[in-house]
Amino acid sequence: MLEHALRRDDERLDDLQNNGLRILQKPDAFCFGMDAVLLAHFARLRKRDQVADLGTGTGILPLLMSQAEPTTVFHAFEWQENMADMARRSVAINGLETRIQIHGDDLRRAPQILGYESMDAVVCNPPYGKLGSVLTSRTSAQQLARQETSCTLSEIVQACAAILRNQGRLWMVFPAPRMLELFDSLRACKLEPKRLRMVCAKASKAPYLILIEAVKNAKPMLLWLPPLIVYQEDGAETAELLSIYGNNGADVDHTKND
Amino acid sequence: MLEHALRRDDERLDDLQNNGLRILQKPDAFCFGMDAVLLAHFARLRKRDQVADLGTGTGILPLLMSQAEPTTVFHAFEWQENMADMARRSVAINGLETRIQIHGDDLRRAPQILGYESMDAVVCNPPYGKLGSVLTSRTSAQQLARQETSCTLSEIVQACAAILRNQGRLWMVFPAPRMLELFDSLRACKLEPKRLRMVCAKASKAPYLILIEAVKNAKPMLLWLPPLIVYQEDGAETAELLSIYGNNGADVDHTKND
Repeated sequence: MLEHALRRDDERLDDLQNNGLRILQKPDAFCFGMDAVLLAHFARLRKRDQVADLGTGTGILPLLMSQAEPTTVFHAFEWQENMADMARRSVAINGLETRIQIHGDDLRRAPQILGYESMDAVVCNPPYGKLGSVLTSRTSAQQLARQETSCTLSEIVQACAAILRNQGRLWMVFPAPRMLELFDSLRACKLEPKRLRMVCAKASKAPYLILIEAVKNAKPMLLWLPPLIVYQEDGAETAELLSIYGNNGADVDHTKND
Repeated sequence: MLEHALRRDDERLDDLQNNGLRILQKPDAFCFGMDAVLLAHFARLRKRDQVADLGTGTGILPLLMSQAEPTTVFHAFEWQENMADMARRSVAINGLETRIQIHGDDLRRAPQILGYESMDAVVCNPPYGKLGSVLTSRTSAQQLARQETSCTLSEIVQACAAILRNQGRLWMVFPAPRMLELFDSLRACKLEPKRLRMVCAKASKAPYLILIEAVKNAKPMLLWLPPLIVYQEDGAETAELLSIYGNNGADVDHTKND
């Protein structure tokens, strides 16, 4: 079978519980997290959107988001070649080669490769750790995915802004304590924060992540969504989390289908 | 009795359910709201703090906050003279003349009157409406209190920054959709947002207010608090709201008592 030919010995083929989607992961190196699933769900795709994913890792975001709107096309960048190769094989296992292209390249080269102002939307799950922060990751693959070892937040946001068309949308997930730093980077590139959702582990806890939609060249006015609560006070998943995992493609934006 | 001599016919003397505190209000003009009580509770006073309140209205903030830490002194500005007069009589009714001074003056004159960099802390419940916004209030007193008819957000924040000493703290409440505009005004004056709490009418609703502590000349790093939920889904007050109203002075900051 195709998947067995495409899976390496140190990889695991996981069922995403979404239209039969499967994904390759390396249990000892890097697996996708809940933040990616929440981000895919937060994004609002429109018909025929050309979408870039800067720093795709296992390819989880385009895989999940491809199921929400079948006319969308994804251009995903991952500069760790072994990771890009694994993501490419996940795309092949799901037969999505015509809709998801994995570029084994530095995301800072996305404007040259895709074209300036060429994308309708960008999704990005950037490293959370500042370069030089105390946190260190177990493996170098994790390190590259989780910390700004190779490029800074500001460089990532600049790449997002360069490929987005006027009024194009950017969806990101980021640690809540660094929200103002993210907003500074976004607004320096004319990406205006427009829709904000805080993610709290429990209703009684402070938000630890934010989900943000920024729109290129938009006017300032922030729409807050209700907090997304992950667990009930007794530790069980909330109904909303279960519903997101039960239907973990991206939402579809029905407000405009041009 | 003193209170009867000090109360005018169109005023009501209300019991604040806090150490016997009472406050004069004009039912047909302007009464304090829940936002003031939440802001008083959000503030963290230290011993012997000199605190300014810019735009005090009925004087609700210094009255409530005076009960949390008995060594604090308040300098409150209210440029509507009839409102300042009523606040001054509320202070007298409570015998707090030595701790709360009401200035019937434009808050933009606070730096000249109190001195530049003279305050340890500032509290401010500014008008929520932008100048020229659609919302209009019933009376001119409400209008002046709720909209930027007389001075802009940026002017108010500049006055706060001018009177605050280095590392001094500012507490504000503001509409959540205008958060970024507030943050821009704060940071333009070297007031760095440091502690943020969203207020949601219900857990399932988007935040409608934010409570913010900014610190003069501080480094960027935002501490988020758990969302403050006002009502349960069935409409009853949450335990936290009841507890705030049951002890509605300001919190005391035990981290530093110099």
